[in-house]
Amino acid sequence: MTVKTKGFTHIINLSDFVEAGVRESGIKEGIGCITVAGSTAGVTTIEYEAGLIEDFRRACERLFPENIFYAHNERWGDGNGFSHIRASFLGSSFSFLVHGGEAELGTWQQVVLVDFDNRPRTRRVVMHIVGE
Amino acid sequence: MTVKTKGFTHIINLSDFVEAGVRESGIKEGIGCITVAGSTAGVTTIEYEAGLIEDFRRACERLFPENIFYAHNERWGDGNGFSHIRASFLGSSFSFLVHGGEAELGTWQQVVLVDFDNRPRTRRVVMHIVGE
Amino acid sequence: MTVKTKGFTHIINLSDFVEAGVRESGIKEGIGCITVAGSTAGVTTIEYEAGLIEDFRRACERLFPENIFYAHNERWGDGNGFSHIRASFLGSSFSFLVHGGEAELGTWQQVVLVDFDNRPRTRRVVMHIVGE
Repeated sequence: MTVKTKGFTHIINLSDFVEAGVRESGIKEGIGCITVAGSTAGVTTIEYEAGLIEDFRRACERLFPENIFYAHNERWGDGNGFSHIRASFLGSSFSFLVHGGEAELGTWQQVVLVDFDNRPRTRRVVMHIVGE
Repeated sequence: MTVKTKGFTHIINLSDFVEAGVRESGIKEGIGCITVAGSTAGVTTIEYEAGLIEDFRRACERLFPENIFYAHNERWGDGNGFSHIRASFLGSSFSFLVHGGEAELGTWQQVVLVDFDNRPRTRRVVMHIVGE
Repeated sequence: MTVKTKGFTHIINLSDFVEAGVRESGIKEGIGCITVAGSTAGVTTIEYEAGLIEDFRRACERLFPENIFYAHNERWGDGNGFSHIRASFLGSSFSFLVHGGEAELGTWQQVVLVDFDNRPRTRRVVMHIVGE
């Protein structure tokens, strides 16, 4: 799947993609993995509601501010040092279980893509499931 | 498995559960994944001793304080914005290798459930292993 | 594979190891998992260039300083409380997809071992791939 993002910690709900992929795989019991290619985006889970989306962005800015010194920016001039560091800490893949033919997630728990880059991007999100 | 927790970054050692699951699976070489359903808990590894449990909690409070502003709390009034954000950063699943019929972990490395919620919870922890 | 590290957030590029492992497995579509055994090291991805390596270390020291109080240090006297906490947050495993016989990673995205310990270590890094 390709996803168009706005960057700047844009958070996109991938739950429909995950559910459809699990269903189409026909796998009842197994392990799934969903990844985004690239070094300035990540995948995690969150309750996808406007408050937490704001809180997550706020935490990113508090822990990994956009406008402090980054050696990456000095060298490459693309200004997205903060994006890289956020992505390395969050992780670019998320593994989950498939149980009874469904992804084993909480009721309020959505799989999300987080694009940390400092410009719009088109992201390639891929999922694979192994099992029976 | 279901686990009763006290919330508030309660850290529970899952190593016996992991070991038993690997043994019962009969799998010698493969990949395991252990997850907790829900958006306010996570899974990671740590040396499970009282000092580090305190240090881990202290780091959570330093990085994601309970009593700062969370838009989630404004909207939903359940006061667990900090729990959600901590969980999204830690991740709700942990993948590991099975090698020679055992989980490939360090001597002092235990798999743990971390419940970040602000009240006691009963958590569903599920593991699956694929391989041969 | 065993890797000699210098500790102190030494970051080592594992991309050649991952690529060779994927190729040797002969697997075309599947899930891979790479782990480091131990509770003071982790695995993630980053664009492996000198600027970001410095930025990543700087972020670790900002978020999890070496020289603040750690109860672990009080009890065990080995001074590596910061190493444990950094490792628990980063995670000791990384899962990825294999697609078309290659690891599904971005062009500038390298898999790296991060050794957070406060002394040189010899690390055991293991990878396994399941699929077809």
